[in-house]
Amino acid sequence: MKRSNRLVSLTNFFIENPRQHRNLPYFSEKYNAAKASMSEDLDIVDQMLQEEGIGYLHRTSGSAGGVMFIPESTYDNGLAFIDSLCNKLEDPVRILPGGYLYMSDLLGDPKMVREIGRVFASKFSSLDIDVVMTVATKGIPLAYAVASFLNVPVVIVRRDPKVTEGSSVSINYVSGSSRKIQTMVLTKRSLQEDANVCIIDDFMKAGGTITGMINLLEEFNANVAAIGVLAEADDEEEDRVVEDYTSLVKISDVDMIKKRIQVQPGNFSK
Amino acid sequence: MKRSNRLVSLTNFFIENPRQHRNLPYFSEKYNAAKASMSEDLDIVDQMLQEEGIGYLHRTSGSAGGVMFIPESTYDNGLAFIDSLCNKLEDPVRILPGGYLYMSDLLGDPKMVREIGRVFASKFSSLDIDVVMTVATKGIPLAYAVASFLNVPVVIVRRDPKVTEGSSVSINYVSGSSRKIQTMVLTKRSLQEDANVCIIDDFMKAGGTITGMINLLEEFNANVAAIGVLAEADDEEEDRVVEDYTSLVKISDVDMIKKRIQVQPGNFSK
Repeated sequence: MKRSNRLVSLTNFFIENPRQHRNLPYFSEKYNAAKASMSEDLDIVDQMLQEEGIGYLHRTSGSAGGVMFIPESTYDNGLAFIDSLCNKLEDPVRILPGGYLYMSDLLGDPKMVREIGRVFASKFSSLDIDVVMTVATKGIPLAYAVASFLNVPVVIVRRDPKVTEGSSVSINYVSGSSRKIQTMVLTKRSLQEDANVCIIDDFMKAGGTITGMINLLEEFNANVAAIGVLAEADDEEEDRVVEDYTSLVKISDVDMIKKRIQVQPGNFSK
Repeated sequence: MKRSNRLVSLTNFFIENPRQHRNLPYFSEKYNAAKASMSEDLDIVDQMLQEEGIGYLHRTSGSAGGVMFIPESTYDNGLAFIDSLCNKLEDPVRILPGGYLYMSDLLGDPKMVREIGRVFASKFSSLDIDVVMTVATKGIPLAYAVASFLNVPVVIVRRDPKVTEGSSVSINYVSGSSRKIQTMVLTKRSLQEDANVCIIDDFMKAGGTITGMINLLEEFNANVAAIGVLAEADDEEEDRVVEDYTSLVKISDVDMIKKRIQVQPGNFSK
């Protein structure tokens, strides 16, 4: 196979299989190419992925050596994406009764969701993460997007036990905004003990839901490796109970009378 | 930029942006390359995508002409994937109390979910689809996977109205298996009139949930373009109310005493 053909195939392989280690002989055999040629191919792919600002090839030498694509968008790419997100969110047509913000169109766009996942996965790239966890419903697509770049599975916490998932662990927690007692349930066999967990959610106000997930992880003897929320609300009335998290945007004011929404970059940008 | 570098960049662009039309001058400018060179690049990429069996470049000539990547996995790739899925599902450790099947590990694997999406998107590739619809919770990742290949948005039907999404339309339907009256809710602004909708769900028994979604679409004056379910249960006791659908696998028997699960390819394979 010619180099030009190999480059197309290799690029497709890496984009579709992030963080999957392959040794050089795997590629040499697949493409029936000499090791030295393969090594040059990988140089070209690596250089271009870096120029595009989407990641790099991590290469190790020796007998167990090989190559793995690490998707890692640059910090500047992340900032630019967050800026465009802020602009989209400040559109006054998003204001809903009760001062809520309509975001379902953005969360319903697979490309947008993938880019959000890319930013979080890049931020958490150096951390030891075994699994991404979220709570139904709106955090689910974001969790999958993050997990696809980190090459780890997703576990979904539910607000109601489902008979079709087997035995489960449930906890009660106090919702920060409504002060109501709520329930969270996770199937027993979906999470291993000692797992390092990245928590992802779409929205955080006082942080009750995130705290609930942290408490649930304690029941499983699992660890919080990272917390990422797409949007946080600037909530002056309440003390935030979650401290160490990454937010992409911060909704600081929704003025229903003046039809004005103020959205600024979250703490990712700091 | 050298051809080898352009090929890496182009491949990444097409994989990340399926079904997005770009004209040739867009690429000529981006890479500062002659149209003829670009055209040769596209030939190489097209040939390799086809050889890998994952799709092709759709090219149009003339003043509005250009190129678009159509992800279309081959039928044989689909069959091979479904066979491996059947094998995974037949593992007796999946049997849950009540004769249910544990599938959350498969549905929690982003790579698996993406491949399921690829099979459905390939099957529905020639249809006119504006949006993918599913009902919370387990169908959500599948719906996003399909939508990402079709380059359309996702709308999520909920079983409970959420105050934070604005006004909504709700319907009642009879669940096929439990014969209970259930509710389904969709936010008004999430779906356009006359939209052509692809319904995706993880599981279908008698088809009550799917029928509910079809009824909901009628309320929006939207059309059913396609229906895809990952797994259907072979249900002899009841008449299936949904007829025109594509299933990847069919769970024909779960024997709790003999600890045996029988899974066969669904009607995709017919």
